[in-house]
Amino acid sequence: MTSPRAGLDTSPRDTILDAAARAFMERGFKATSIDDIARRLGATKGMVYHYFDSKTDLFFEIHQRGMDALFEAIEPELKRDLPAAQRLHAMARRHVATLIETQHFQRAVAEGVQMHLRLSTTEAQRRQLTRLQNRRRRYEQVFLEVLCEGIRQGDLRAGEPRLAIKPVLGALNSVINWYHERYDTGPGALDALIEEVTTVALQGLVAR
Amino acid sequence: MTSPRAGLDTSPRDTILDAAARAFMERGFKATSIDDIARRLGATKGMVYHYFDSKTDLFFEIHQRGMDALFEAIEPELKRDLPAAQRLHAMARRHVATLIETQHFQRAVAEGVQMHLRLSTTEAQRRQLTRLQNRRRRYEQVFLEVLCEGIRQGDLRAGEPRLAIKPVLGALNSVINWYHERYDTGPGALDALIEEVTTVALQGLVAR
Repeated sequence: MTSPRAGLDTSPRDTILDAAARAFMERGFKATSIDDIARRLGATKGMVYHYFDSKTDLFFEIHQRGMDALFEAIEPELKRDLPAAQRLHAMARRHVATLIETQHFQRAVAEGVQMHLRLSTTEAQRRQLTRLQNRRRRYEQVFLEVLCEGIRQGDLRAGEPRLAIKPVLGALNSVINWYHERYDTGPGALDALIEEVTTVALQGLVAR
Repeated sequence: MTSPRAGLDTSPRDTILDAAARAFMERGFKATSIDDIARRLGATKGMVYHYFDSKTDLFFEIHQRGMDALFEAIEPELKRDLPAAQRLHAMARRHVATLIETQHFQRAVAEGVQMHLRLSTTEAQRRQLTRLQNRRRRYEQVFLEVLCEGIRQGDLRAGEPRLAIKPVLGALNSVINWYHERYDTGPGALDALIEEVTTVALQGLVAR
């Protein structure tokens, strides 16, 4: 995926998605208007509508980009020829780094998942949110499979792997709620934070 | 606190709060009406308004009850004369058990915290949400202090305790999003789940 951070070489589409994700993060999906998004861009509503049919389309494309970013981040680690325990650690590190890098996209994903749990959505929205939910499940499944491989190799443990993976992902995912730029205090600080979160989150799966 | 599960010996106020928490969990704060809450109770809007001035008042009292339940759950464990590592484990267990028991209240707390992060609230709502946020911080602080005590005693470790406590609470708190009655498959199942989540979440803090 193109980086969701708006930069010099990003397309107008990317720039709009980035601004929309920031607006949704600050105000939530319902309270955000296309006007809010246009204002952030110093553009008109018409410009936004030139690229996207509706606020809902923007929201769903942000979900897709957020999930794309996570799948693409762990992909190279998945293929590395490492013991599963080390592969899981590398995947978790990339997961946390990507959550931080794309925090505004991930907060929209989290809001989408919350909406999926609720009844107050339209039929069309529910289909999209179910698709998002299924992608999240497949993503969890990837981690679960590496955990199970690690258990077979004797380096990892879990009373019930399907259950144990949930608090582990809960620990990793928590960064999207508490991470703030102020933690990035200088060279190496962000990397140390990612390592600390990853280690604390995964230690419960390490065989002793 | 009176159990938030509506029972034979609960007051009308408790029963309304319980129904309101379930309604907020299903539809979210904004989409829920006093009518929805009354319908769940087989009562009239007037009955609800007899006890609560507004939907917002209900929401904020649910936050208070939710946080009361958590503080009260860990209180007896805090006072026990145990090494800090064991005390932390006991507190975390009670925390998870209470999150599950009062899941609908805790989901309203989580929604309140999300709203606090957003700008789209009124001045009066912001004051209430700031109060909730402060209570959550104090609660986190209690866990952090026990962690620091355990580090001094040599049983626990953390690169940076203030940071390490966040993924740990993230792991524990994740139950409010994924716990479902179907996990309660028979005698001892719920207890095993609580123990597994607690162990996985805390292992990253154990000194080796």
